[in-house]
Amino acid sequence: MCELLGMSANVPTDICFSFSGLIRRSKATGVHKDGWGVAFFEDKGVRLFLEPYTALDSKLAQLVKSYPIKSQTVISHIRQADSGKVALANTHPFVRELWGLNWVFAHNGKIDPVKKRKLFFYQPVGETDSEYAFCWILDQIRRRFSKKSISSKKLHQFIGTLIKELNHLGTFNVLLGNGQYLYAHCSTHLWWLTRKAPFGNASLIDANLQVDFQRHTTSKDIVTVLATQPLTFDEYWNMMDPGEFKILKHGVFVDI
Amino acid sequence: MCELLGMSANVPTDICFSFSGLIRRSKATGVHKDGWGVAFFEDKGVRLFLEPYTALDSKLAQLVKSYPIKSQTVISHIRQADSGKVALANTHPFVRELWGLNWVFAHNGKIDPVKKRKLFFYQPVGETDSEYAFCWILDQIRRRFSKKSISSKKLHQFIGTLIKELNHLGTFNVLLGNGQYLYAHCSTHLWWLTRKAPFGNASLIDANLQVDFQRHTTSKDIVTVLATQPLTFDEYWNMMDPGEFKILKHGVFVDI
Repeated sequence: MCELLGMSANVPTDICFSFSGLIRRSKATGVHKDGWGVAFFEDKGVRLFLEPYTALDSKLAQLVKSYPIKSQTVISHIRQADSGKVALANTHPFVRELWGLNWVFAHNGKIDPVKKRKLFFYQPVGETDSEYAFCWILDQIRRRFSKKSISSKKLHQFIGTLIKELNHLGTFNVLLGNGQYLYAHCSTHLWWLTRKAPFGNASLIDANLQVDFQRHTTSKDIVTVLATQPLTFDEYWNMMDPGEFKILKHGVFVDI
Repeated sequence: MCELLGMSANVPTDICFSFSGLIRRSKATGVHKDGWGVAFFEDKGVRLFLEPYTALDSKLAQLVKSYPIKSQTVISHIRQADSGKVALANTHPFVRELWGLNWVFAHNGKIDPVKKRKLFFYQPVGETDSEYAFCWILDQIRRRFSKKSISSKKLHQFIGTLIKELNHLGTFNVLLGNGQYLYAHCSTHLWWLTRKAPFGNASLIDANLQVDFQRHTTSKDIVTVLATQPLTFDEYWNMMDPGEFKILKHGVFVDI
């Protein structure tokens, strides 16, 4: 399987601390050795770092870990290959453009039957069930809505319906973002926490690393982090229920 | 304006040497300070590094310069903004998926009138005329051909026709790649050279850096490099003519 990490914030925020914990799980404290990726939204643009190698052994991942890229929406993934070989084209997150927005997708789980579904506009580049599912979701959105729908409740609900439909085909823990919204679905494992004032300390589970968020934030900052498993041991993490679907904007949950 | 750098090779080859010369032109020996990007194809996957900053000041560009990413097709760009603000979304190269392939595009020049043309499938994320032109080209290909056309002479000719049509709207020096083919169009400035056995030495124009390619190659390697201006002073660079359109596969020019 794989592990997911997501972030939504109301101010550009770096994810160095959480990413440091996640990549330890590629090798030192986990076995997700078959690739890593992280996508940072910067306004409408996306920086995407991908490698089909073990994150902990990667010079690039080491740079990203210490490079304070500020973003309001981040999606990251470390991979243990079980659908498609170890290859760059099979490395999450995946990106496609829809309505002049970058859409970014990462998946933990397995839903091979999705490959029987017909695709219209988007085609997968790699071999994974995950990228196939992403293409299918965007296809369905494109066929159903016009560009003006981006902030509509109907779009949010439709995305939830599509994800739940695919979840019936297997295991579908998902992070999907378009720079404005971050959609999160828990099939089996997904946790979240929101950091806001008064900020405190946090200590990683997977590394001997602490941070005092008080020193790096203002009282108005709101940052929500999602992860397959909690990343810190001294903060309260909320476990999502199987089948739970949440939408974030600027670090805050949006009513569906 | 901007500067382009492209590479097509018959074996996975790093572009560290040429990239070292190019990024000097962002500041030390040029004024292309508004962003840099480089796309490396790895089979069907693409690694894309983008920053809306001066390459020579970037830690990430420094890492890429010394990180021997092996690729058969590379497209790189340093930007001097003249269409769209300095922003990640306006930074070349641009990537879109068509027929399950990543297509990568970078442009030097100006063709604002392209923005009057109707777009169908692809929409620009940023504000540049370049990305708009890329979307228009892919739209036209998608409307005209099916997926099976990827290696067809008719597709190659059609891409040449589209690029020449846009060239009438302004200045359109272009590198376009899909992992199998690299298309290059000279509107005003584009040079190329092919390195093959017997390999020799090369010295950058923009930095005090030499390489003995004999030490890094086998006798079967063929590598063609394209650049807005020659990058080395002790090799023979071929100047493309205005209006000239070339197609490369595995380092070798393909008949159109």
